[in-house]
Amino acid sequence: MIVGFDVGGTNARALLIDPSTGDVLDSALASSAGDGPHLVATLAGLVDEMRTGSGHPVDAAGVGVAGLAHRSGVVRYSPNLPNLVEFPIGPELERALGVPVNVGNDATAGTWAEARLGAGRGSDNFAFVALGTGIGTGFVLDGRLVQGASGFAGESGHMVVDAHGPEHITGQRGPWEYFASGTALGRMGREAADAGRFDRGRVLAGSAEAITGHHVAGAAADGDPGAILVLDGFCREVARGVANLVLVLDLERIVLGGGLADIGEPLRSGVGTWLGELLVGADHRPTVEVVLAELGPDASALGAGLMAADLL
Amino acid sequence: MIVGFDVGGTNARALLIDPSTGDVLDSALASSAGDGPHLVATLAGLVDEMRTGSGHPVDAAGVGVAGLAHRSGVVRYSPNLPNLVEFPIGPELERALGVPVNVGNDATAGTWAEARLGAGRGSDNFAFVALGTGIGTGFVLDGRLVQGASGFAGESGHMVVDAHGPEHITGQRGPWEYFASGTALGRMGREAADAGRFDRGRVLAGSAEAITGHHVAGAAADGDPGAILVLDGFCREVARGVANLVLVLDLERIVLGGGLADIGEPLRSGVGTWLGELLVGADHRPTVEVVLAELGPDASALGAGLMAADLL
Repeated sequence: MIVGFDVGGTNARALLIDPSTGDVLDSALASSAGDGPHLVATLAGLVDEMRTGSGHPVDAAGVGVAGLAHRSGVVRYSPNLPNLVEFPIGPELERALGVPVNVGNDATAGTWAEARLGAGRGSDNFAFVALGTGIGTGFVLDGRLVQGASGFAGESGHMVVDAHGPEHITGQRGPWEYFASGTALGRMGREAADAGRFDRGRVLAGSAEAITGHHVAGAAADGDPGAILVLDGFCREVARGVANLVLVLDLERIVLGGGLADIGEPLRSGVGTWLGELLVGADHRPTVEVVLAELGPDASALGAGLMAADLL
Repeated sequence: MIVGFDVGGTNARALLIDPSTGDVLDSALASSAGDGPHLVATLAGLVDEMRTGSGHPVDAAGVGVAGLAHRSGVVRYSPNLPNLVEFPIGPELERALGVPVNVGNDATAGTWAEARLGAGRGSDNFAFVALGTGIGTGFVLDGRLVQGASGFAGESGHMVVDAHGPEHITGQRGPWEYFASGTALGRMGREAADAGRFDRGRVLAGSAEAITGHHVAGAAADGDPGAILVLDGFCREVARGVANLVLVLDLERIVLGGGLADIGEPLRSGVGTWLGELLVGADHRPTVEVVLAELGPDASALGAGLMAADLL
């Protein structure tokens, strides 16, 4: 069996996975607080627990983290896990467990899970686009997971799409993530409410300032015309970055994941429609399929485990 | 032996290649005018000529074309070769020659040539960026050439980097190619001359309106401060798109090719410097190497031949 971890800023989630089927046999959760050695002890403890609980041996472990996870198993940059930066979590966990450990970016791991077990099945050339607080992406090209020279592939949320646009928290002007993340959806809702075009949002949130992407999504699902218009504008911004990725990589499918995939069909069809509008040369290309991710919040831990299984 | 073709709007260039070494044994040129069947006859004639002239059998042929070349050997879109669109040049040439034929995008083919024989050697994760009238790109990831679902990968020149920027001939607003192609360099030179910041260009070209990228490049090579400033601004625009590609794919090397690579070291170092400025998180990443292409105008025909050799 394999253990896959998704290590976030607050929690570490662990799944015990049968690598031959992808079945999840057990799961566990622990705090990810503390420094590198502390986290290694936490993760090793979870593995011990699952090994004992299930009676199965654990042959490898995979760790998915938000940020720049180097192929060597060192996290080079992670706003969510500042204590982990430059700590060799991969080698240290390997030593603690005595089995091979793979460390990868969480979106990259999620991509591999969707490829093997989810909405990427049947496609050799697709992108996984995780829309959450920011945007994480990953790619399968010619049936192979793209990791990049160092393991940093898929930082597409930082791709600049509006070079003279607003300044983002990264210091860049106009990166895709500024316009098409969950953070952006909330801002678009607040702007619409301020302009008198989203009164429902003000009611739901208590004030225009308190509107988040959840309020926009909820009101749109209830048929509120103001929210539907905001969501349509948001889908356009998602499609703008997706169109760039399709031009660069000639993808045949886009898998929309992350928290915002809970919006469901309105998001999927909105992005698909705008992609047809924005993709130059769309008349000469096969239509790019836009689908929703299938594995939900388990994708990263599952994919991290499957990537580790590939080491065996 | 293999024959590699580079079919442009005016000419078809053919190289007779030893696929085991990449050595070019012979070359020939013919007009690419006429419809699909006419072009097939032209290319088949060149193969016959080379076969007879060299005394070597020809085991496969590869064709590089500007535009969307489908993996099936049909050109789906090509502004330079309107007569060829939807014509099954691959299958028809295969029938005429009696050997396997591969059809691919010219920049994709050039990428593979640089990978095998040129400036991509020693890197498993690089981009070839051909700066000419427009921008063509290609990628090697994990040592493999990226072709995409249909064979259309690398249309990065159309990637939007300035969503509210000027309208391009494609109808898009602010694609990379608008700012960073040879066409753009000429425009930047004219704008600088109009603003009184590039008098040398006016002298060289006869008038501000007649300034092209060549005048900017020439004057910069001669040390003209106005031209050097224009070229620096141009390098920034090239780097802006390159930064996006690095974020998406985690490339370790950028190979600058196409006609503008003749500018040489000032282009290379300018793009490298600006890339360091514009690439978010550059502090946490290994420095991306920026190098000049090594194979010049032969790259596409060479690469098309090498791609065909891979069919054998």
